Amino acid sequence: MKIDVTRRILSANDEVAAENRAFFAARGILTVNFMASPGAGKTSVILATAARLPAELRPAVIEGDLASSIDTDTLLANGIPAVQINTGGACHLDAPMVRAALPRLPLDGTRLLFIENVGNLICPAEFDLGAQAAVIIASVPEGHDKPYKYPGMFAAADAVLLNKADLIAYFDFDVAHFRRGLAMVNPAAPLFVVSCRSGDGLEAWVAWLTALQPGAGRSGSCDP
Amino acid sequence: MKIDVTRRILSANDEVAAENRAFFAARGILTVNFMASPGAGKTSVILATAARLPAELRPAVIEGDLASSIDTDTLLANGIPAVQINTGGACHLDAPMVRAALPRLPLDGTRLLFIENVGNLICPAEFDLGAQAAVIIASVPEGHDKPYKYPGMFAAADAVLLNKADLIAYFDFDVAHFRRGLAMVNPAAPLFVVSCRSGDGLEAWVAWLTALQPGAGRSGSCDP
Repeated sequence: MKIDVTRRILSANDEVAAENRAFFAARGILTVNFMASPGAGKTSVILATAARLPAELRPAVIEGDLASSIDTDTLLANGIPAVQINTGGACHLDAPMVRAALPRLPLDGTRLLFIENVGNLICPAEFDLGAQAAVIIASVPEGHDKPYKYPGMFAAADAVLLNKADLIAYFDFDVAHFRRGLAMVNPAAPLFVVSCRSGDGLEAWVAWLTALQPGAGRSGSCDP
Repeated sequence: MKIDVTRRILSANDEVAAENRAFFAARGILTVNFMASPGAGKTSVILATAARLPAELRPAVIEGDLASSIDTDTLLANGIPAVQINTGGACHLDAPMVRAALPRLPLDGTRLLFIENVGNLICPAEFDLGAQAAVIIASVPEGHDKPYKYPGMFAAADAVLLNKADLIAYFDFDVAHFRRGLAMVNPAAPLFVVSCRSGDGLEAWVAWLTALQPGAGRSGSCDP
């Protein structure tokens, strides 16, 4: 019974995700779904990435949070078009929430749309939003064991950023151990070790991102 | 339809939670449900707390993770009885999982049982496990806005630890802002600013914990 209902919810979500995907493809918008633990630095990565992008990409952001508009306010203050989704209690964004947010964004000329999912290293991976790429942001203070403990999320990634790399020595963080764990569940995903504080590593990440072509790549990477 | 099924699942969970609560009360075991984001330091807090407890309390631990036995192995290596629950994909522990774990623990003489929930700052708050106290562990690298963004979790807390306090200056973490956010959603919960690395602040937390009496206090603090 529970499984049947869950399947029906996911199936309804996938239909809307397909519509979102067609919407993005028709407009030539590359859409990235950022997923991470609370406080891993999703908004910081978006700000640091936007600052390094060619201006003609005109990035925009959909912000997902249980409550508050803190991150949207930060983005708007930095001149980046952004719209807030408050999920109430829901632990993830879903495709209908994204669809409902699209008319509230000025997308004329936008070539890159970032979706910042709710801070949660588990549930968001099960809901396809229609984004072209799923990017997981881990952070050094969380510890180097996260790919071993949260394999489902890391398996869903098209790329992984390891943020707050300026703290690797402070936390005795073993990057090789983290990398092995990621390779176990997802050998194809590239890992970018970055620090939004120092800027280290961001160039390689931005180069990977800007090399993606709208409409290409894995289309259903978040499907369960 | 979805709501009805969810209600039925929660109701079945609450029945088992009540049984767990009666089990703990009959044996004089104080049980604490630790909830936090991934990597906030739940296991580190349990280790640091156990090291400062009177030996006669004989603490034991139930470890919840999606996958792996990393934390249980760490606890056992430190001489603390522990048993692992792997939830598969589930984003939280529930009362039946805890009930099933109890016979696997040597509880003779145990006066304090720690339950380390799955790393998730949202879903675990909705599932009563039968524990007497719900303790949220936040950590400085996650940022001082977490009570504003995850109000449901912080509202469910009997106490809040702010861990990794050794990094307050590095992250320009505003403790007063965090404290105001917590007070907005939960004026009654005490806040303990601690560092498992330096040991700072742990005495006050352990004093609060050991002053709790089994069977007293808020019994259903995690109920939705």
